[in-house]
Amino acid sequence: MTKSFDELIEKVNNCSMKTVAVAVAQDAAVLEAVAVAKERGIANAILVGDEPKIKEVAASINMDLSDYKIIHEEDTMTAALKAVELVHNQKADMYMKGLIDTKSFLKSVLDKEVGLRTGKPLSHVCVFDVEGVDKLLFLTDVAFIPYPTLEDKVNIIANTVEICEACGITNPKVAPLAAVEVVNPKMPATVDAAELTKMCEEGKITGCIVDGPLSFDLAICPEAAKHKGAEGRKIVGDADILLFPDIHAGNLVYKAMVHTAKLKNGNIITGTKAPVILTSRSDECEVKVNSIALASVVAQAMSEK
Amino acid sequence: MTKSFDELIEKVNNCSMKTVAVAVAQDAAVLEAVAVAKERGIANAILVGDEPKIKEVAASINMDLSDYKIIHEEDTMTAALKAVELVHNQKADMYMKGLIDTKSFLKSVLDKEVGLRTGKPLSHVCVFDVEGVDKLLFLTDVAFIPYPTLEDKVNIIANTVEICEACGITNPKVAPLAAVEVVNPKMPATVDAAELTKMCEEGKITGCIVDGPLSFDLAICPEAAKHKGAEGRKIVGDADILLFPDIHAGNLVYKAMVHTAKLKNGNIITGTKAPVILTSRSDECEVKVNSIALASVVAQAMSEK
Repeated sequence: MTKSFDELIEKVNNCSMKTVAVAVAQDAAVLEAVAVAKERGIANAILVGDEPKIKEVAASINMDLSDYKIIHEEDTMTAALKAVELVHNQKADMYMKGLIDTKSFLKSVLDKEVGLRTGKPLSHVCVFDVEGVDKLLFLTDVAFIPYPTLEDKVNIIANTVEICEACGITNPKVAPLAAVEVVNPKMPATVDAAELTKMCEEGKITGCIVDGPLSFDLAICPEAAKHKGAEGRKIVGDADILLFPDIHAGNLVYKAMVHTAKLKNGNIITGTKAPVILTSRSDECEVKVNSIALASVVAQAMSEK
Repeated sequence: MTKSFDELIEKVNNCSMKTVAVAVAQDAAVLEAVAVAKERGIANAILVGDEPKIKEVAASINMDLSDYKIIHEEDTMTAALKAVELVHNQKADMYMKGLIDTKSFLKSVLDKEVGLRTGKPLSHVCVFDVEGVDKLLFLTDVAFIPYPTLEDKVNIIANTVEICEACGITNPKVAPLAAVEVVNPKMPATVDAAELTKMCEEGKITGCIVDGPLSFDLAICPEAAKHKGAEGRKIVGDADILLFPDIHAGNLVYKAMVHTAKLKNGNIITGTKAPVILTSRSDECEVKVNSIALASVVAQAMSEK
C-alpha cells in the first residue's frame, strides 16, 4: 500500500522503466518535467513534434536531448496522433500532453483508430499527499466532468478504484462528499451519496467501500469523525477516495489544497487503455513529475493484468 | 487595513473591551473560548443558562467564574431569548451560541421582539489568515445558504463587504468563484459570476470591485493569475472576498483549508443588528476565540456608525 509520493516513486523505481509519449513536445515546462523524470529514474520519453522547435526549447532550458528519441512532425494534430499511436501500439506506456490545446489532445486520446478508448467514460483523478494523513488521497473528479449524474459517479468510482489498486490500495474507502453528513432531499448531492452507499451495500458497486454523504472533515480527519459521532459509519476519517458533487466543488478544493496547503500532488486521466497525463500550464514541474510517476505505477499494474 | 489575525486582535485590543452574551452557556468548549478571550483582553462575557450546570462545567475546566455575570435560566429557549435580548438592548455587543441546537439559536437571533433582525437576509462569513497571502480572505457562504440565487449572492456580497469595512478593508475585491475563469452557459455559476461583475460595473452593486468567474488560483495567487493572463482583469490574485457558487463548494473548501492547510480562521453570521457567533462543535478553541475577536471588531465598527 503506497502511502506517500515518496513511496510511489520508490515503487516506480522497483519496476521496469516506463516510456511516456509526449504529444507536441516543444513546450519548456513539459520538457523540463520529462528531463527530471528521466534523471530520477521515473520514466523515459519519446518526443513527438516539431524537431527544430523541440531542440530550440531544450537548448533554452539546458536540456540534453541525446538520450531521447524524437519523431519529427510539424502539424499539431498529426503529431498528437503519432504520439498516441505509440501508446496504442505499446511502443510507449503512457501518453502526455505538450503544446496542444486540451480539446485536440482529448480528440487524439479518443481517436477510434490509434487512440486509447476503452468504451468506458473518462474521468480525472488527482492524488494528494497530505501532511498528517497517513495515506494518499484520491480526489475525483476535479477537472473533467462538470455535473456528474449518478451513473457518471458510478463510473468515476470504478475508474478511481482501478488507480487505487495500481497503487496497492485494495478495497479503498470512497467518501461521496457534501457540505453535510446527513441526507437532505433538498440537496441532490446528499441523495446521490446515499444512493451510491446503498448500491455498494447491494453489490452493484464493487471493489470498494462507499459511505456518504460525508463532510470533508469526517472523511479525512479521524478526530473530527469521532467527535461528531462515528457510530454505524464505515468511514471514520480514513477515506481513500474523495468523490465531489460537481466540478466547482472539486476544482475549488483541489486548487485550495494546492495554493494554501502547498501539498504534493499528481494527476492523470482514467478510463483509458493506458494512463494519460494532462497537467495544466500552471502546474509546477513537481506536479508534472509526480503525474508521470503515478502514470508509471498505473502502466505497470495494467501490464501485469 | 487588517492583514492577519494577529493584527485583528491588536485592533481589538485598541478598542474598548466588548461583551459577548452567551446563550445556554453550560458548554465546556464555549466556556473555554470565553475564558481565553477574556484572558487575552479580547472580550468580556455574560453567561446565560443553568447556573449550577455552568458552575459544574467551569469547575471541570478549572475556569474561575468570579469575574463573570451569570444569569440563571434553566429553560434552553428562554435562556437564548434572554441572552439575545441583552444584545438587542445593547447591554452586550455580540451574541454567541452555547449548548443549544442551531435551529433554536437562529430562532432567537430572528425573534421579532428581542432578536437581531435587520430585514436583511443572514449569511455566513469565514475569515482566513493564509500563509503567503498578504491579506485576510473572506470566504462566503460556506455554512448557511445552500444554493444562493443571484439575488442571494448580491445580499451575501453586501453583508460581507460590511465585515471587510469593519476590518479596515475599503472597496474589497470580490471573486465569484467557479471551476473555470470563462463564462460557460452550461455552468450557471459562471453565468451568475459574469452577471454580478456586470451589476457592479453598472453601479447596482457598490462598495466593492467584482470580477468573475475566477478559479481559486486566479483569485488568490498573483503568479498563477499572471501566468494565465491577467489582461482586462480587475482581480489578479488579490481577491479579498471569495464568493462560492453553492454550500458544497464553500463548505468543502473551508474544511479542506482547515484540515489540510491548518490555517487560522474565525467566522460570524452577518446581516444582523450585532455580530452573531455560531461556531461548530468541532471547531478548535482558537477558532472560537478568533471568531469572538472578529465579532468584536465588527461590533466596534457598528458602534461608530
